[in-house]
Amino acid sequence: MGAAERRSVLEAIKRFTIETPSWGYGDSGTRFKVFHWPGAARNLREKLADAALVHRLTGVCPRVAIHIPWDKEDDWEAVKAYAAGLGVRIGAVNPNLFQDEEYRFGSLCHPDPAVRRRAVQHVLECIQIARAVDSDTISLWLADGTNYPGQDDLRARKHRLEETLAEIYAALAPGMRLLIEYKFFEPAFYHTDLADWGMAYTLARKLGPQARVLVDTGHHPQGTNLAHIVAFLLDEEILGGFHFNDRRYADDDLIVGSQHPFELFLVFNELVAAASQPQAPRIDYMIDQSHNIEPKIEAMIQSVLHIQSAYARALLVDRQRLSQAQAAGDVLGAYRVLRDAFETDVRPLLAQAREEMGLDPDPIAAFRRSGYADEVARTRPASRSGASGYPGA
Amino acid sequence: MGAAERRSVLEAIKRFTIETPSWGYGDSGTRFKVFHWPGAARNLREKLADAALVHRLTGVCPRVAIHIPWDKEDDWEAVKAYAAGLGVRIGAVNPNLFQDEEYRFGSLCHPDPAVRRRAVQHVLECIQIARAVDSDTISLWLADGTNYPGQDDLRARKHRLEETLAEIYAALAPGMRLLIEYKFFEPAFYHTDLADWGMAYTLARKLGPQARVLVDTGHHPQGTNLAHIVAFLLDEEILGGFHFNDRRYADDDLIVGSQHPFELFLVFNELVAAASQPQAPRIDYMIDQSHNIEPKIEAMIQSVLHIQSAYARALLVDRQRLSQAQAAGDVLGAYRVLRDAFETDVRPLLAQAREEMGLDPDPIAAFRRSGYADEVARTRPASRSGASGYPGA
Amino acid sequence: MGAAERRSVLEAIKRFTIETPSWGYGDSGTRFKVFHWPGAARNLREKLADAALVHRLTGVCPRVAIHIPWDKEDDWEAVKAYAAGLGVRIGAVNPNLFQDEEYRFGSLCHPDPAVRRRAVQHVLECIQIARAVDSDTISLWLADGTNYPGQDDLRARKHRLEETLAEIYAALAPGMRLLIEYKFFEPAFYHTDLADWGMAYTLARKLGPQARVLVDTGHHPQGTNLAHIVAFLLDEEILGGFHFNDRRYADDDLIVGSQHPFELFLVFNELVAAASQPQAPRIDYMIDQSHNIEPKIEAMIQSVLHIQSAYARALLVDRQRLSQAQAAGDVLGAYRVLRDAFETDVRPLLAQAREEMGLDPDPIAAFRRSGYADEVARTRPASRSGASGYPGA
Amino acid sequence: MGAAERRSVLEAIKRFTIETPSWGYGDSGTRFKVFHWPGAARNLREKLADAALVHRLTGVCPRVAIHIPWDKEDDWEAVKAYAAGLGVRIGAVNPNLFQDEEYRFGSLCHPDPAVRRRAVQHVLECIQIARAVDSDTISLWLADGTNYPGQDDLRARKHRLEETLAEIYAALAPGMRLLIEYKFFEPAFYHTDLADWGMAYTLARKLGPQARVLVDTGHHPQGTNLAHIVAFLLDEEILGGFHFNDRRYADDDLIVGSQHPFELFLVFNELVAAASQPQAPRIDYMIDQSHNIEPKIEAMIQSVLHIQSAYARALLVDRQRLSQAQAAGDVLGAYRVLRDAFETDVRPLLAQAREEMGLDPDPIAAFRRSGYADEVARTRPASRSGASGYPGA
Repeated sequence: MGAAERRSVLEAIKRFTIETPSWGYGDSGTRFKVFHWPGAARNLREKLADAALVHRLTGVCPRVAIHIPWDKEDDWEAVKAYAAGLGVRIGAVNPNLFQDEEYRFGSLCHPDPAVRRRAVQHVLECIQIARAVDSDTISLWLADGTNYPGQDDLRARKHRLEETLAEIYAALAPGMRLLIEYKFFEPAFYHTDLADWGMAYTLARKLGPQARVLVDTGHHPQGTNLAHIVAFLLDEEILGGFHFNDRRYADDDLIVGSQHPFELFLVFNELVAAASQPQAPRIDYMIDQSHNIEPKIEAMIQSVLHIQSAYARALLVDRQRLSQAQAAGDVLGAYRVLRDAFETDVRPLLAQAREEMGLDPDPIAAFRRSGYADEVARTRPASRSGASGYPGA
Repeated sequence: MGAAERRSVLEAIKRFTIETPSWGYGDSGTRFKVFHWPGAARNLREKLADAALVHRLTGVCPRVAIHIPWDKEDDWEAVKAYAAGLGVRIGAVNPNLFQDEEYRFGSLCHPDPAVRRRAVQHVLECIQIARAVDSDTISLWLADGTNYPGQDDLRARKHRLEETLAEIYAALAPGMRLLIEYKFFEPAFYHTDLADWGMAYTLARKLGPQARVLVDTGHHPQGTNLAHIVAFLLDEEILGGFHFNDRRYADDDLIVGSQHPFELFLVFNELVAAASQPQAPRIDYMIDQSHNIEPKIEAMIQSVLHIQSAYARALLVDRQRLSQAQAAGDVLGAYRVLRDAFETDVRPLLAQAREEMGLDPDPIAAFRRSGYADEVARTRPASRSGASGYPGA
Repeated sequence: MGAAERRSVLEAIKRFTIETPSWGYGDSGTRFKVFHWPGAARNLREKLADAALVHRLTGVCPRVAIHIPWDKEDDWEAVKAYAAGLGVRIGAVNPNLFQDEEYRFGSLCHPDPAVRRRAVQHVLECIQIARAVDSDTISLWLADGTNYPGQDDLRARKHRLEETLAEIYAALAPGMRLLIEYKFFEPAFYHTDLADWGMAYTLARKLGPQARVLVDTGHHPQGTNLAHIVAFLLDEEILGGFHFNDRRYADDDLIVGSQHPFELFLVFNELVAAASQPQAPRIDYMIDQSHNIEPKIEAMIQSVLHIQSAYARALLVDRQRLSQAQAAGDVLGAYRVLRDAFETDVRPLLAQAREEMGLDPDPIAAFRRSGYADEVARTRPASRSGASGYPGA
Repeated sequence: MGAAERRSVLEAIKRFTIETPSWGYGDSGTRFKVFHWPGAARNLREKLADAALVHRLTGVCPRVAIHIPWDKEDDWEAVKAYAAGLGVRIGAVNPNLFQDEEYRFGSLCHPDPAVRRRAVQHVLECIQIARAVDSDTISLWLADGTNYPGQDDLRARKHRLEETLAEIYAALAPGMRLLIEYKFFEPAFYHTDLADWGMAYTLARKLGPQARVLVDTGHHPQGTNLAHIVAFLLDEEILGGFHFNDRRYADDDLIVGSQHPFELFLVFNELVAAASQPQAPRIDYMIDQSHNIEPKIEAMIQSVLHIQSAYARALLVDRQRLSQAQAAGDVLGAYRVLRDAFETDVRPLLAQAREEMGLDPDPIAAFRRSGYADEVARTRPASRSGASGYPGA
């Protein structure tokens, strides 16, 4: 790698930002148990404080996604100011369409128009909140689905969803993006109304250019080639962003890149390749994880490091050599171009980028030294017990 | 089917009993939400009352599995008397090794001897409870595992498990059975200490003849041939029982037979074939489900009907014709022997068996007519809100 | 079921036709071995003769799909006349884009324009053959994909595919349909260029109204809800047809309905529900199986019986009662409407339909009695040995 | 890493040997097509020549596994001498129990005693061949299974297998090892007689100490934690060896480590941890792949590099620091110990080891420079066409 190329890689690393989720700083768990972590954030202010620390340590996490109503506050101007004071700002606003008693059989797809109305109103409220906090992104995950064959009419549910989404889309502010997430299963176990990228794509296309597909890396059947889906959506110019996490089995919501680092690299390989095109699309890189047994803040920093590691390696791919090998039908030669980049130890490169940004080259070590964990463990008593798997439950 | 054979099938159906789980009568849910069902049982007495109703309606559910500490009471003699008054008795006692804060990193496999001690003590207490309620079965599910590579030493955990299980085994009352369950994943997401039947089998063999393997039908990787595992364990004379439920994706805990009725039939086909042998082993047939959106009691009756339906069809298999076709290498002829039994509508047969038992031929209709659902909805106000996925959480 | 309803069901069963594949009558196998079946058809004439027998026995299989070049002949007029003499006609024409040495790295997506040209020419030839045999259907399965990350540029391959498909589409005769199949994996093992329904859908939409999506029931990840995909494609008015088969693991190409009969019923439940709409689309029901160890003709008849069984049960679903239960949020009541239809033994109904058509009520028994199997075993000596998994190899 | 530690790692790398398979040097493919590779080896002599080249280039592949009858020769003394002259020797002898017409319904589990006899005789012949070539290893993969429910009696098949294996075991030479492989599915699609490690383990235990379990890395359900199974078998002192390959979907038989390099590292992490014990067991590291589209020899060298890369990283794990973090319940700290080793670029280390062995530091480059590929492409005309997926077919 020549000096100019190294410089270019360093600058790209420094420019690349990641959005962290407010809910990743609080306690969460499985259906069996929520283990409390000493000092876990209990409200939006504490979550923003933790997120701001992650940003100070990594330099690349200026935005924090919020979840309504978990993070709901009365005075959004005050929230904005508070966040700004910490050096961060609000990113995507995530409606919650799964925790009301009314949502037993769904929200936007529910058979009862009154429940659909309630769900639409909630998303409209989130759009208002987004406006209030200067966010331009609504990130929509639908827990809708059924548990038994025949429980509801699958096509009727699709029609209801098309209607309610159209109403939501119409209410978007100009320039605001609606990111539509899909998920293979859970919490519904027979069918999920938006089960795969094809369904999210079809609905986004019908809605219009402000609608985009959101890829959650843990929401696919086993074996799915994620890099291929990303390449396809990029080529269709409809990829809006990511919810990053990792898994071995189902939607395990583990630290991104902790189980399949090569897969994460291959996803970034597609993103970097597409980014070199003239009209590279805006992609939002967001973490969405459930830190069940890990220290929350450290888990978040670790996630950022994994993403940066995958991105840096993807930047190192020798694309000219790759194209030549591909054109020559040199299967293993082409593979080795990727593999070479993956084998490279990019920790020195990332450390240099951080130092150039005035940061500690090792954010985990800096965090451990900071005393922050002990302090919040002392100053934030556990707010509840017997809690369920998700913060708002 | 001749009259003698029909009589034999009817008598087998009438003799075949199913154990229902106390926790299946209470509210439960996913990590995202527990939806409250009006009238859901809130304590052991109510659960026993509901279970007794299921037994009165179906005639085949005389035992109720309990979960400690969810169902813990001070006076077990009183519980026994109460159950007996309702016409049921306590079945398997299920320890809970996943809901204490101490169990963040496991219970019987935990790195800390003090936590392992706590876990062993809890199981020993369950053995005492089993004695007190005249139960001869401890049903052990271990939620132990890790979420990240390296988190703990896999072989050290195995050693700890062998030690703690040996201590538990030594404390079993004479004739008491220890049923060892395995699970592919969840709530641990990197590895599960008892991940498959082979691990449960290996440990049960080391412990001795009172240890048996428990098959939970939802705890396997996709595609796994359950009937084959059952046949293998039967042949090894180490199958102890079942936790019945169904799933499409992960461990969905849906109503047994609701997603893959043919698979359930194939499992029973192996059980019926093996039962004709001179020394047929004791197998405990237990339901273990999580009724997230369904009415609890109706879901339990439906489950019983599905099991009876699978069992009745398996009884109809013409085993002589099957053997002949198998010996002749008649692949499709042999397959059709099973298929013929499966295609048969066994509802009239089951209705006749119920009538011979003095029951309503349609337990669901009888339940709906009974007014019980309305009554408990009125008399059992919701005991909690914002609850998590599992009753004790 | 009233008499009028029963009559309506019987007439529907008699009208419902299934296309059988020429390749299902010949030897096929796995990568490990092709077992020769005595009397297996060795050329198009013999395949048509066998298919005609299946039609004579079942009354519902008037069309035979062909595969080019496996079934290539010089005089298509003669083929047409021969088929007509047997009482059948040619159905879908299936190009072969995977068995030329040139296709090592793909066909329509190959990096080399010359190979793409060759592939396009082959499909254009198939369009000519379709015209010659009065078929209006091209059924396109693409084996294209890669085995290693980096082997080729995923987006470039998509562009090539869009180009070559556009050229093919432009050459379709008026009213001719291009059915685009997708497959999760195999024979490519890193990525498949048309990996899921979403990719087939996207390309079909771009091509125009003569392009439709073909669902092969064995080409999905584990757990996939097939009925949901079918409902979605029906609602989008882009479902063109099926390749029926069954599997437990990968694309096992076993007899349709032999592993998951309930799933097949649920697919037909969606089809029957949609068929009651004013503008029901044309759907081609085709079998696509690999009979590795089974007698070929008997396997085909068995497949037809399974499809009819699933279809008949779907016709029995009480849709009014279903809608009412769904509207009432009666999860288990709605489920039982489907389950009741599934539990019904439809063999008498199918036997009656056959008798009304002048057929033997038991086509398998009639086939076994006919002596046809012995005759072809005698008159058709094995044409080759050491053959590979697919007929043309 | 200190100098002493580095030295120790280098010596371990130099000592670590890998067995390559004769069949990996010939043409192979899928059920759809075998693509011929110019110069692919056509017989045992050519395979040994290619394997010897791989050994000369890598320095760590002194043994070549053979497959009977694919590699059968009349004069095994001559084969031994020929191999010795090339600097290699014969490793495991692999019987073939899947390519005779008689094996349609199985081999060692076949319902017909005459077929079982044939299969046993073949394995006994392989034992004789092993003696003749001074090999002490029989590597047994069983393709036995069924395609349809009911096709055969699952327990009867188990009994037959126990009988035939006992006969084989009794015929082993003293010190000879019988490695028993298992496979989730394929070529059987309903059930596989040895479907998982638990079945292989159970039978190996019954046979005696010369029987060991062979882990083929591609023979597991999706999501399976391979490192855990390896740790369990190591702890049970019954792991005999590996068949290395990689896959995304089914048993894809791709280059080991090419899809999931982190998983391969985690497997080696368990092996290295166990190797430090006093009585480290003998483990045979063997490659078993199907090079469908790749250049055969280059694919084999690439495989060796991947294995060495995973092994080297596992050697770098700081086991003291790991234990400390594990004991402290420091989930992410422990994880990072593994991750740090994995992030390390071990190419320089491997290059140094090769140079110390007098080899080119880059075996792929050396191979490409050697002209060997061109030469064999010229001197080895294709021996057959229209071939099937496996060399002997």
